[in-house]
Amino acid sequence: MNRFNSLFTKNIYYGSQLLPGKKHTKIVVGDYFLLKRKYTEQQVKTYAEISGDNNPIHTDEEAGKKSIFKQRVAHGMLTGGIFGQMLGSTLHDAIYLNQTLKFTAPVFLNEEVEGRMEVIDVNYKKKFIKLKTSLHKIHENDKIAVEGEAMVLYKYLEE
Amino acid sequence: MNRFNSLFTKNIYYGSQLLPGKKHTKIVVGDYFLLKRKYTEQQVKTYAEISGDNNPIHTDEEAGKKSIFKQRVAHGMLTGGIFGQMLGSTLHDAIYLNQTLKFTAPVFLNEEVEGRMEVIDVNYKKKFIKLKTSLHKIHENDKIAVEGEAMVLYKYLEE
Repeated sequence: MNRFNSLFTKNIYYGSQLLPGKKHTKIVVGDYFLLKRKYTEQQVKTYAEISGDNNPIHTDEEAGKKSIFKQRVAHGMLTGGIFGQMLGSTLHDAIYLNQTLKFTAPVFLNEEVEGRMEVIDVNYKKKFIKLKTSLHKIHENDKIAVEGEAMVLYKYLEE
Repeated sequence: MNRFNSLFTKNIYYGSQLLPGKKHTKIVVGDYFLLKRKYTEQQVKTYAEISGDNNPIHTDEEAGKKSIFKQRVAHGMLTGGIFGQMLGSTLHDAIYLNQTLKFTAPVFLNEEVEGRMEVIDVNYKKKFIKLKTSLHKIHENDKIAVEGEAMVLYKYLEE
């Protein structure tokens, strides 16, 4: 099992946890951040309104029951937004360059999930930070609901 | 200039436009959909609340002015959500499998943008549809703000 498998299946981390509300300038491969959250019915309904994605599988209880998921699910792009939230709170003023999102399992309403990010590459000259990003279903044995990678430009980065 | 360059720079399409509110079962490479929209101040503030991404560059006029963008910008993951909206309204009950997002230019508040999707591959047996996805800044000569690809599972697909 390689290091990243360890990280995502066993919660073993090798760097420092980057906590919200602190300006981080020394960032190295292995640093990570974690964030637990839920998506409430109200948040999903509000996201449907502002995003314009009114698919009833997200907002209508009956439609959810009739779907292959057997209940309402949060919008994929809402759940993937946890990585924006984690970057915004931890790497202040970071410019989001790209994000890949693979939706591997549904996130249900009010389900406890945990976002995990780990620094997997740093370019100190260009001030780029590459991160492995995943969202886990806590009560389904940490099953991955969303996974991918992100790249940010972080002007405060120091070697 | 290849076909996709034509598509994204010249608005030349080779298939049929898939319009919202109609059940599409016959889908072929070249089919496309387009959607114009704006992100209002209220939508951006509401997205900040429900996503938890409270970076002031999105919500605070002064912070926006001091940023490298010189004004407030919509959250990348909010603007990328247009692809979810377009899929939800056009390919009813599609299951979103993955999405890549490259954020290439900021989207400002109340700026007119257009989402464009084009079918670039179809697997009729597995019922997978692959799409090229992009979001364009209408009043900046169609400059791309977000680009990437998406894959969906669409059970109604017929050969």
